[in-house]
Order: sequence, then C-alpha cells, then structure tokens
Amino acid sequence: MPPRHLRASLAGFGAYTPGQQPPDGEGWVKLNTNESPWPPSPAVLDAIRAAVDENLRLYPSPTAQAAREAIARHHGLGPESVAMGNGGDELIELAFRAFAGAGDRVALPAPTYPLLPPVAAMHENRVAIHALSPDWSLPETYFADPAPLRFLVNPNSPTGTWVGRPEVARAAATAPGVLVLDEAYVDFALEDRIDLLHEGVENLLILRTFSKSHALAGMRIGYALGHPDLIAALDLVKDSYNLGRLAIAAAVAAIADLGHHDRLVAFVLGERAWLGERLRGRGFEVLPSATNFLFVKPPTSHPASRLHEALRRRRVLVRHYEQEPVAGWFRVTVGTRHQHETLLDALQEVMH
Amino acid sequence: MPPRHLRASLAGFGAYTPGQQPPDGEGWVKLNTNESPWPPSPAVLDAIRAAVDENLRLYPSPTAQAAREAIARHHGLGPESVAMGNGGDELIELAFRAFAGAGDRVALPAPTYPLLPPVAAMHENRVAIHALSPDWSLPETYFADPAPLRFLVNPNSPTGTWVGRPEVARAAATAPGVLVLDEAYVDFALEDRIDLLHEGVENLLILRTFSKSHALAGMRIGYALGHPDLIAALDLVKDSYNLGRLAIAAAVAAIADLGHHDRLVAFVLGERAWLGERLRGRGFEVLPSATNFLFVKPPTSHPASRLHEALRRRRVLVRHYEQEPVAGWFRVTVGTRHQHETLLDALQEVMH
Repeated sequence: MPPRHLRASLAGFGAYTPGQQPPDGEGWVKLNTNESPWPPSPAVLDAIRAAVDENLRLYPSPTAQAAREAIARHHGLGPESVAMGNGGDELIELAFRAFAGAGDRVALPAPTYPLLPPVAAMHENRVAIHALSPDWSLPETYFADPAPLRFLVNPNSPTGTWVGRPEVARAAATAPGVLVLDEAYVDFALEDRIDLLHEGVENLLILRTFSKSHALAGMRIGYALGHPDLIAALDLVKDSYNLGRLAIAAAVAAIADLGHHDRLVAFVLGERAWLGERLRGRGFEVLPSATNFLFVKPPTSHPASRLHEALRRRRVLVRHYEQEPVAGWFRVTVGTRHQHETLLDALQEVMH
Repeated sequence: MPPRHLRASLAGFGAYTPGQQPPDGEGWVKLNTNESPWPPSPAVLDAIRAAVDENLRLYPSPTAQAAREAIARHHGLGPESVAMGNGGDELIELAFRAFAGAGDRVALPAPTYPLLPPVAAMHENRVAIHALSPDWSLPETYFADPAPLRFLVNPNSPTGTWVGRPEVARAAATAPGVLVLDEAYVDFALEDRIDLLHEGVENLLILRTFSKSHALAGMRIGYALGHPDLIAALDLVKDSYNLGRLAIAAAVAAIADLGHHDRLVAFVLGERAWLGERLRGRGFEVLPSATNFLFVKPPTSHPASRLHEALRRRRVLVRHYEQEPVAGWFRVTVGTRHQHETLLDALQEVMH
C-alpha cells in the first residue's frame, strides 16, 4: 500500500532501489554499485580538506561557478555549456523536469538504468519502452519515436555494452526534441561523444559523473554538457544551491588531476580483462564491456539467485537481475585483484 | 523567451532568484541571505575533515542513516520520523513531489518564501494564494482551503513574523491533506512546533535546516520531521543518494554540539535587538522578528531601491522587495557588530 497522503498519481509507484550500501568497515567485498576500486586522488582529498573552513557558513555559488569553469576548460567548451548536479542522478531528474512534463512522451531503451522509469513516473510522463535488439543495439522504433525527450545510456548499464558514433548521431538527428546521453561509464570506453557537441549538435545533452573514474561517489558530483539553451533550461529548474562548497572544491581539483584518473582507468581496464577471462573459464557468459563492470551469466547449472545469495553469505556483494530479458544475469563491478580473488574463491566453493 | 526545448507547461516560468553570492574574499558586508555571522563549530569542522578519506570512493548511505539517527535522538523521535535533504530547499521540492501532482491544488500564504510558487509551477500544481492579514496573521480562507498540500513558513520570511501554537495546530487540524511547516528560522524564535508531533499530529511535516543556526549553509543539509507515513512518502520519491558522506558527518557532529549552536543563537538575538533599535532610531519601521533577520522599511523620504543601490555601491548587501504588499521593504540579516556598524555608517552617508 502506498504511504498515506502520497499524491494519487503515484499510486502503485515503485521507487528505484540502489545496490546495498553496508556500513563502512564491515569487510564486505563490494562489487555491486560500480564504485572505484581505488581511493580518490590524494590531491583531491587535500583540496577538500583545505576547503573545510569558516566559509562553510556561507551559501555556495548557486551555479557552482568554479566547477563549471574548470570542467568547461577541460572539455574545450564555454562555461555556459556546463551544468552541475548533486550526482549524475540529479541531472537525470533535472532533465525530466526541464524537458518532459505531465502527459509528455519519453523514449527509453530497455534494459537500461532502472532509475529512468520511476523518474518518468514521478513526472507523469508517458513512457515508450524500446527493447534493445538481441545484440543489444538500438531498435529501429527508437529512432522513429516522436517523444520530446529521448534517453540513451551509453555505455549502457546493466549490460556494459556500447553503441558507436553513427547510432548516437542518428539518435540525436532523428530526435524531435532532446537526446540525453548518459555517459556515466564512458571513461572506460574507447571514445566519448563530445565530438558531436563540438560539431554543433544542439539537441544533445551529455551527462557525466565523478563517482566512478574519479572515485568520488561519496561526494555526489555530476555534470551535464550541451548547447547553452539546454544548460539554461536545467539551470532554470534546479534547486538554488544544489552543490555544496566541498563538492565544488572536489570537482575543481579532480578535473585537474588527470594523472590519477588515467591510472585508475588503466587499472580498471586491466582488471576487467583479467576477471572476464577467469569468469569465462568457469563457464560464465561474459558480455564485452565498455564500463567498469562485467555483465555475466552463470552456467545454467547454477541459478543466479541461489549463487547471489551464496556469495552474499560469504560477504561478497554483486548485483543480480530477475526480470527478462536479463533474468539470471549478474553485474559485477571491477574491483581490486584481491577482491576478484575473493570472489573467485567464493564461486569455487559454491559451484564446485 | 524560454530556452528552446523547455517543456511547454513551463512557458512563462520564472525561477526563484537567490540573493547575490559574491566570490569569497571580496570584502562584502553580506547581510542578504540570512547566513550565520559566526563560523561553524570547530568540532564540526574537525568531524568533516576526519571524514575526508578513502571512503569517499564509496556511495553514502542512501538514507543518510547516521544523520537520521542522531537527529531523531536529539528530538526524541524515532529514525523513521526523520528524512534528510540536500538543504531545506530539496525537502520543499520533495514535499511537492510526494504530495501534489499535476493539477493538484496547493495552498500558500503570501508574502512568504518566494521559492514556493516556482516549485509549485514546476509540479504543474494549481496554486491558491492566501494574502496574510495586515498584522501578518493567517487569513480565514487559508484554514478553509481544500488543497491536499498546505505550506506554512513559520517564522515567516521575508516578514520575520510568527504565528503561535493555536494557528499552527488549526492549520494542521483543518488540512484535508498534509501541512508542511517550514521551521528554517525557528531556532531564533521562542518555541518550535515539535510538540504537535509528540502529541500525535499525523499530517504535519516540519522542515529544518543546518544553514542558519548551525552555520553550515555551504554544506547543504536540511531535515524533515513527521509521521513515518510522511517520511516514507519523501523517501519514495527522493534521489537515491541525496546527501554526500561529508554532509552526513557534518550533520551528526552539528546536532551533537549544542553549546556552539546555543551561543550562536544567543549572539544573534542580542545583535538583532541592538540593530533593530538603531534602525528604529533612524526612522525605519522594524517588524518584530522571530528570525535571524530584520524586516524593515526605510523612512518614506528614502526610497528602498535607491537606498539598496547606494548600499551596494558601498559593498553592503541586503535584500529588498519590489512587489506589494512588501514593496519598499528591506530584509537585513543579523550579522556581527562590525557589519552592523558598517551598515549604519553607510546608511548615515546615504541618508544624511
């Protein structure tokens, strides 16, 4: 039953449930929410500490201006092409808020980030779901959808797969309104689609996050890149001060520290290959990944839900899926070698 | 003209504009956004610094659980009666999200916090405005309004005035749905209305902030108190991880440091009295204040907009209002004695 007083249009609403976040220091092998295996850059931690001062009595810049400017410079764009969010999730919510009201149509591929349908429900949108093709590419119906708001998570979650430049360009070119391209995982892929912004595509809004490749999930920092009109629309509907002072300081420092970022990404790519090979060796189906996780299916002799529970009892957390077309699949975050060995040992015990 | 692609239902939308936030260190006397004149507690700054560690790579607790529990204990409630927000503003937005959908009616007094009408517009609510009586009390029509969502900011902004227990209890008792009571300024008033929660009023949601009496505007922390059903509704619609790890650590430390809080409040009450008397002495009308600001009207010989601009040129920021029924009024944050003397000197120059 919905909570009393919940607005009638949300009767039957099912919220997105994020992966379990056990209290710190309980020794879990946490491969369920795609966090970084490495800590943030020491330079970023120093910059945050340096910002913990008496100025915390003051409101932050409403536009998080210092962060916008640093990120704009990094990407070769103007600050009027950058918006900041309290995590990438807030920017998703703001994109719905800006571009799709009650009764408006929204086009979503499936499977994709499971947050999107609940956010659409909150905005009372009409949701058009386009099932990905068996090779996880976008179906023709998606490119023909008349919705004023299209979403595309690329690389995709939970599949970890990836569509190339022609598909993304076509999704934007055929969109009657805005294409939101969520590139939360793009730093682990071969290329991003900022080239389309530099070429002047005006209806493309790209979302990014500091949670994964900058190891700052605990700070809640995301950003959006796009034509100044799209950015102005997000700014118009956002909360007045959506980023705190420490998040702004962290963003400025993190975007400047490319060394840490690049080493972290290289480490993840190496471990991704290593773990993928080992899981294939144990009979798992492993999709090619353009992300910091692997999407894998255990051999049919070992049903995913039982395996998931057995891992959980051994304090290993992975994400598993129960609904078609990905029922029986796992999403395993790329962690440290030690975490991978613990996972593989646990699988060995469970599957022998 | 609205930005391209902005959803049609927001054509003509006017966002709330917060008070100017000049860059740090430019020497402004900043009495325009009701920040604390004192820095945060040293214990709180230490607790934040201590939380700047490698765990920032991990997502925070989705419920900000440690903060909920500390705040619940402080108020003698259970943690299921507390929700956390990225500032009080996010909780306002979440209350609309949870309790009033497109086409639903929302009852607001006027004048009140100017954020409320834009938030209602974003949610496509029908807004019923109830003009406060000449003595700034609630009009009879407000108590008769059938809206499923009523807002009441008490103490009120920008007037700084205050309605007592009978009015608040009546507003809740006569509400067919939820009464949201924004107590952002209540620590500077004689009493709060948590007594109504302890008495079992089930449709009352109280909002609080750490921005003012805890001097943490830069950290973005607010909380809501109410019946577990109301809290469950907010949790259902909020972003997954709306508070970062440092905000959670700050909230836990701040709610534990009553000494700093109480001294800060006592200082503000003293300075409020001092400044109010001086302004009255210069011919200002000064409303009785239950907040950390004074709502004042300059003598008619000195139009507010010219005065505001003259103060601005002297690097003194106050808020001024141009729309009836408060056209020609100023809102002046209570600051330090030095800031007040600078303000008074500037007025002396301008008004002589």
